[in-house]
Amino acid sequence: MADAEIIAVGSELLTPSKVDTNSLFLTHELNALGVEVVRKSIVGDDRARLTGAIRDAMRDTRIVILTGGLGPTEDDVTRDAVSAATGRALVFSQEICDVIAERFRRFNRPMAEINKRQAYLIEGAEALPNPRGTAPGQWVVSDGCSILLLPGPPGELKPMFTNECAPRLRERLPKLVIRTRWLRVAGMGESDLDALIAPVYTRYTNPVTTILAAVGDVHVHLRARSDREDEAESLLDEVESQIAELLGDRIYSRGGASLEQVIGDLLMDRGATLSVAESCTGGLVAMRVTSIPGSSRYFRGGFLTYTDEMKTSLLGIPPGLIAEHTAVSEPVAVAMADAAAKLTNSTYAISVTGYAGPGGKAPGLVYLGIAGGGKADVRRLQFSADRERVRALAAQMALDLLRRKLLAP
Amino acid sequence: MADAEIIAVGSELLTPSKVDTNSLFLTHELNALGVEVVRKSIVGDDRARLTGAIRDAMRDTRIVILTGGLGPTEDDVTRDAVSAATGRALVFSQEICDVIAERFRRFNRPMAEINKRQAYLIEGAEALPNPRGTAPGQWVVSDGCSILLLPGPPGELKPMFTNECAPRLRERLPKLVIRTRWLRVAGMGESDLDALIAPVYTRYTNPVTTILAAVGDVHVHLRARSDREDEAESLLDEVESQIAELLGDRIYSRGGASLEQVIGDLLMDRGATLSVAESCTGGLVAMRVTSIPGSSRYFRGGFLTYTDEMKTSLLGIPPGLIAEHTAVSEPVAVAMADAAAKLTNSTYAISVTGYAGPGGKAPGLVYLGIAGGGKADVRRLQFSADRERVRALAAQMALDLLRRKLLAP
Repeated sequence: MADAEIIAVGSELLTPSKVDTNSLFLTHELNALGVEVVRKSIVGDDRARLTGAIRDAMRDTRIVILTGGLGPTEDDVTRDAVSAATGRALVFSQEICDVIAERFRRFNRPMAEINKRQAYLIEGAEALPNPRGTAPGQWVVSDGCSILLLPGPPGELKPMFTNECAPRLRERLPKLVIRTRWLRVAGMGESDLDALIAPVYTRYTNPVTTILAAVGDVHVHLRARSDREDEAESLLDEVESQIAELLGDRIYSRGGASLEQVIGDLLMDRGATLSVAESCTGGLVAMRVTSIPGSSRYFRGGFLTYTDEMKTSLLGIPPGLIAEHTAVSEPVAVAMADAAAKLTNSTYAISVTGYAGPGGKAPGLVYLGIAGGGKADVRRLQFSADRERVRALAAQMALDLLRRKLLAP
Repeated sequence: MADAEIIAVGSELLTPSKVDTNSLFLTHELNALGVEVVRKSIVGDDRARLTGAIRDAMRDTRIVILTGGLGPTEDDVTRDAVSAATGRALVFSQEICDVIAERFRRFNRPMAEINKRQAYLIEGAEALPNPRGTAPGQWVVSDGCSILLLPGPPGELKPMFTNECAPRLRERLPKLVIRTRWLRVAGMGESDLDALIAPVYTRYTNPVTTILAAVGDVHVHLRARSDREDEAESLLDEVESQIAELLGDRIYSRGGASLEQVIGDLLMDRGATLSVAESCTGGLVAMRVTSIPGSSRYFRGGFLTYTDEMKTSLLGIPPGLIAEHTAVSEPVAVAMADAAAKLTNSTYAISVTGYAGPGGKAPGLVYLGIAGGGKADVRRLQFSADRERVRALAAQMALDLLRRKLLAP
């Protein structure tokens, strides 16, 4: 598999508010060609540093793509840096200069003297036409390494890559197909999950398995390479099936769908409806459920009962029940879920009651209830995490508990 | 001015859909310390390539910050790569191992054998405590270069940088006083705001003014440098006072407090309480209000009425009112807010009713109501944005409307 490094050039990309998005487009296109991006760099408008970065990249990869720094001003240093890194001279091209001059004429603007800087080609480079801008791209092969100089504006870079670079790369590269799969898992820590499935995936170098963790949510990503589509798919099948067997019903989606999307689909399939009664999560469960377009077809509504008094006045929880067990207890979680289902006339209802912390009686203690389909389910959880994480974990586990109830025979 | 390079480690950051955001935070913090970021790199979970990238960075800069790759699994290669690049051994630390084991005990979870990998320190490194996660950070000085190993999850990285790294860097760097101010503004677009205040801030190079925009929220950041504290403060006073005059009551906080924090403080000051009745935002307003620790002192609860039927059965909105005006209308927004305040016996109530889209009758049309202190306020808004942004903008504007009501004489 061929490797590439992308170097984005521009001091503005080193400020706290700018991200380089060209490399996302390029990565997508390169992967489709069977090229893996092994490093991305961002370097300012600094001739010496950029020269060093290009040399580093030429040492490690066979394809180096530079974006930006092809403008006409002093701080556009990409041409100079490639010249220095490869030891090749910059050669003035009258042909390119004429194309640039023609472009200015078309726009009825005078061509400034500095624009001639854009007519210099690295010795031996091929110019890549840029119908959308002034600076042509360049393609130069040095020491067996293909170096691509592309303009920074996405509107110029994208068509140039698609029309000029991709066909050239396709010709030079061995045919390679890349296929991916996602398994998403709720309610398991990253290291527990890894301990469980590592014995499988470490036996394979193709597909490559990556584990990504968010709060209460772990994603297993499989990526297979082959020169044939069916082989890539069957490599994935082989590993995915073994991992799936180990993880069982902890996998909530295989195509990449979010937990709230999966729940929405399950509710729709069953013609069922949902409501909530949230205390410590303060609306987070409902917010996630309603983030899905079309959720009004199954989500009816709910109650935010942040105080004991509200649990009584909105949901009718008997004050005696709260006095006997406290508001954060199994009986109150069950009563909240049952009341929400009944008051909204929903098939299912989720309740959450807990102490998000910090401080208080038992920070991190949460009870979840799921009403519907007979007796309510209830679960006690104890998290050791800050307020934000306790709330996020409680909402995640509540949604997963509902998923399991919906899937139960 | 000192130079730094940031290396983000993780194969997932080399996929077409992921951007490295940690480096934006770090750049911001480093700039505030007078450190310039001269290169950012992203390298996959590849020991050899990462070792090469660290060596490149050590050649060019005096501060190298690595983020990610400190997890317990085989593909977490940062410790190994720094060890290889510096020629220093990895040394097992029983002390760190005990801290990790204690953390697992607190969560009532068994510590997996692989977690011991996280207890290895580069020879001569200082461990940086990580109260939010398992892996400690590390600080090692090699060949005059300070190398920082920080965890990848932003929730762990940010406090570690702020509490452990920034003070150490400040000690080592030439004394330079940097003072900052934040003005946070709701309900104004970034470009409108810039057009308004640019005539002021472009006249000054010190302080430097930066405008950062989130959804419905714009932050104006002023940063002054001097070798004297009082001079830095008076430079800030001069520019801040002019900007503040132009923005007036659109500024909701000056110290950096979030809108929900400001509202919480205002409600507490007035001994007032709050409830909500949310339709299209599905709990987002309440979720933000209750994200503040101690919000149970002023937030009572509320209603999620996602369907017309729920607006009637939970809030008692007359079906005739909905039939006459539709659920997304001024009279219904007012009735929802009034009903929420009354049913929860709160001083104030926020209502939101709208079409989040996509599709439907009038995607992006939202009515907000604020009950309390006499006649309800109501506002009609029309957003042109996707579902997620419409919901976020509606919640933001609802909170700002409440803030204005709380401040009204």
